[in-house]
Amino acid sequence: MVNLRRMVILTEGYSDTVSAKTAVCLLRYCPDEVVGILDAGNVGKTAQQVFGVGGEVPVVAGLASSPAANTLVIGIAPSGGRVPPPWRALIREAIERGMNVISGLHEFLGDDAQLAALAAQRGVVIHDVRRNNELDVATGLGIRDDCLRLLTVGQDCSIGKMVVALELARALQSRGEDAMFVATGQTGIMISGEGCPIDRVISDFLAGAVEKMLLRFQHHKVLVFEGQGSISHPKYSAVTLGLMHGARPQGMILCYEPGRTHVHGMDHVPLRPLAQLRTAYESIAALVSPSKVIAVAANTRCLDASAARQELQRVEKELSLPACDVIRDGPDRIADVVVQQRRELLSLGTAT
Amino acid sequence: MVNLRRMVILTEGYSDTVSAKTAVCLLRYCPDEVVGILDAGNVGKTAQQVFGVGGEVPVVAGLASSPAANTLVIGIAPSGGRVPPPWRALIREAIERGMNVISGLHEFLGDDAQLAALAAQRGVVIHDVRRNNELDVATGLGIRDDCLRLLTVGQDCSIGKMVVALELARALQSRGEDAMFVATGQTGIMISGEGCPIDRVISDFLAGAVEKMLLRFQHHKVLVFEGQGSISHPKYSAVTLGLMHGARPQGMILCYEPGRTHVHGMDHVPLRPLAQLRTAYESIAALVSPSKVIAVAANTRCLDASAARQELQRVEKELSLPACDVIRDGPDRIADVVVQQRRELLSLGTAT
Repeated sequence: MVNLRRMVILTEGYSDTVSAKTAVCLLRYCPDEVVGILDAGNVGKTAQQVFGVGGEVPVVAGLASSPAANTLVIGIAPSGGRVPPPWRALIREAIERGMNVISGLHEFLGDDAQLAALAAQRGVVIHDVRRNNELDVATGLGIRDDCLRLLTVGQDCSIGKMVVALELARALQSRGEDAMFVATGQTGIMISGEGCPIDRVISDFLAGAVEKMLLRFQHHKVLVFEGQGSISHPKYSAVTLGLMHGARPQGMILCYEPGRTHVHGMDHVPLRPLAQLRTAYESIAALVSPSKVIAVAANTRCLDASAARQELQRVEKELSLPACDVIRDGPDRIADVVVQQRRELLSLGTAT
Repeated sequence: MVNLRRMVILTEGYSDTVSAKTAVCLLRYCPDEVVGILDAGNVGKTAQQVFGVGGEVPVVAGLASSPAANTLVIGIAPSGGRVPPPWRALIREAIERGMNVISGLHEFLGDDAQLAALAAQRGVVIHDVRRNNELDVATGLGIRDDCLRLLTVGQDCSIGKMVVALELARALQSRGEDAMFVATGQTGIMISGEGCPIDRVISDFLAGAVEKMLLRFQHHKVLVFEGQGSISHPKYSAVTLGLMHGARPQGMILCYEPGRTHVHGMDHVPLRPLAQLRTAYESIAALVSPSKVIAVAANTRCLDASAARQELQRVEKELSLPACDVIRDGPDRIADVVVQQRRELLSLGTAT
C-alpha cells in the first residue's frame, strides 16, 4: 500500500451510501487520511452532510481544490466493477498532477496503456487492489485447533458485513484479545493494508486463497473474516461459499438490513427469510467444517432509534440469538457472545 | 476449435484413467480424431489396453512415431492445472514439427514467450481452452420457462459428471428430443467444440458466465449442463455453486463412485453420504431456483457386473431414485425419468 496517504475520494455522480460504500468506509475507518471528496454535484457540502460520516472533510468540484492530496481513490464498488466513462479524464488529471491512484474496480486502471504510460512518466503508482495472482487450490491441511475463526455472513451483498467484522475485531482487541480483521474485499484491504480480493480470484483457487490467509494469520487467537455476498445471491453465491469453505469459521454472524426486501440491484429477486438463511449457512458450512451462527448484526441505518430497538428485540426473539447494530450500539453484545462461546466453538472445529 | 484434428494425446507418466481423464474422454467421444497416445512408459500397447477405451489407437514413444498427427493435446487435468516440467520439451518439439497444441491446463502455454514465439514462427495455434475473458455478472432475467435445464452434480470431483451429461444428452437426442450438452470444463469443450471453462472464470463472474450459456442455448428444449466439483469439496465447492445458481437446473442427476470413501486427492477428507448430499443440493439450489434430484448415476468401473447390479439396487432403495451406470448400462433409465418428469420439472422452474 501507499504510505502517508492524503486521499481525495472520487464519488462524482454516485454519492449515495450504498454506491459509494468504499468512500463511506474509508471516511469511517481512515478519517485522518481523507482530505476531500470529489463530486461536483455536492460541492460546498461536507462529507458528514452527504454520507453521514466524515465530519468536516469537504466535497470539492475538482482536484485543484485539494492541493495537499497525493492519492486519488475510486470511491465506488459497482456490480461488475467498471469505470464510469466520465471518470477517465479525472483519473488522468490526477496522474498528471503527480497523484497515486487506488482503485478497487474489476476493470484494472493499470491495464489502460495510456494511464499506465502517464503514471510511469509522472513516477506515480496505480494500485489496482483487486489484482491478484492466486493459483493455489485449498489443501485442508495444517489448520490449527486453537484459532477461533469467525465470519460475517449475510442476507444480501452491500449490507455491512465488512463493518461488522471490523468493529468486532476492534472490540475484541480493545478487550486485550489477540484478534485480527481479515480483509477479503477491496475496501477492507484499503483500510487494513492487507488481505485478498477474493471475488477477483479464479474460481478454482478461491477457497485456496482464503485458506492461505487462514494459514498465514492463524497464530492470532481470533480471526474475524470479512464476509462477501450471500449464499442465496444469484450473482455472488459462489464467492460466499468459497470463502466459507476456505475460512472454516467455527462461528458466523448473520448480517441483515431491516426493511430490505429484495436483493440489492435485483428488484425481481426477493430476499430469503433469516431463519432459512441461518439453517442454510450452518448446513452448507458443515459440508466442510462444522459452524454455527452465534449472533445477528442488524444494519438499522434507515430506522429511528425506537424502531431500531424494537426490531432488534423482534429478531432476537425470532432467532433466539443476541442481536445488535454495531454502529448504533457498538459491537459489545457480539463480542460478549464470542468470548462466552469460545470454548464451545473451538471444540466444534476439532470435531471435524 | 481447430478443424480436422488428428490428435496425439500426451499422457507421459500419467496414464491412469483418473489422472488422464481428458485423454480417456477424447478416446471415448472423438475416436476418429485420435491417432496416438504419447507415453514412452507404455509404448507398444494400445489405448484400449492402457485406458480400457480407444481400441487400436497405439501408444507411442515419440512424435516421430505419429507422422500423420497435426495436433498435440495435453491429456491430463491435474488439481491446480500446471504443466509437468518434463513435458515442456515435448510441447516444443510438437510446435517445431508444425503441430497445433490444445491444452486445458490452468497454466497457459500461450503465455510462455518461447512457446508463443515458436508457434508464431511455425504458423501453428496454441489453444488454451481454459482461457476466457468473462466479466459479466448474472442478471436472473430473460430465462425461459419452457427450457428444461438439467445438471449433473456429484459426491466428488473426477467421478464422471461430464460423461453422464454427454451420454444423457445423446440418449435424449437419439429419441428425437431437442437436447444439447452444455460443456463447462476443458474436456467437455474439447469434445463438443464450445462452452465455458467455468473453473477458470473470476469468481464474481462465474454465475454470470453460466447464465450467458443458458441464455444463448435455451432455444433448445433440454439443456444438459456438465457438472463440476462437488458442493462439499473443500477445493472446488465455489465452482459447483456458481454453476448451480447460474444454470438454475430444474432437475439434477447425482453422480458417485461406489467404493470411493474419501475426496479425490484429499485422503484426510471423508466423502459425505449420498442422502445428505441430495438434501444439500436440493436446498442450496432452491436458495435461487427450485430443483430436485431425479436420478442417480453410479460409476461402477471398479466393480464386476454382478457387484455393480447389486450396488445399483442398493442405492435405488436407499434414495428411492432410479439409478444406472451410463457406460455399463447406457443412460436410458435416466432419460426415461427426464421424459416422464418433464412437465413437473418445468413447473418447478416457473414457481420461482
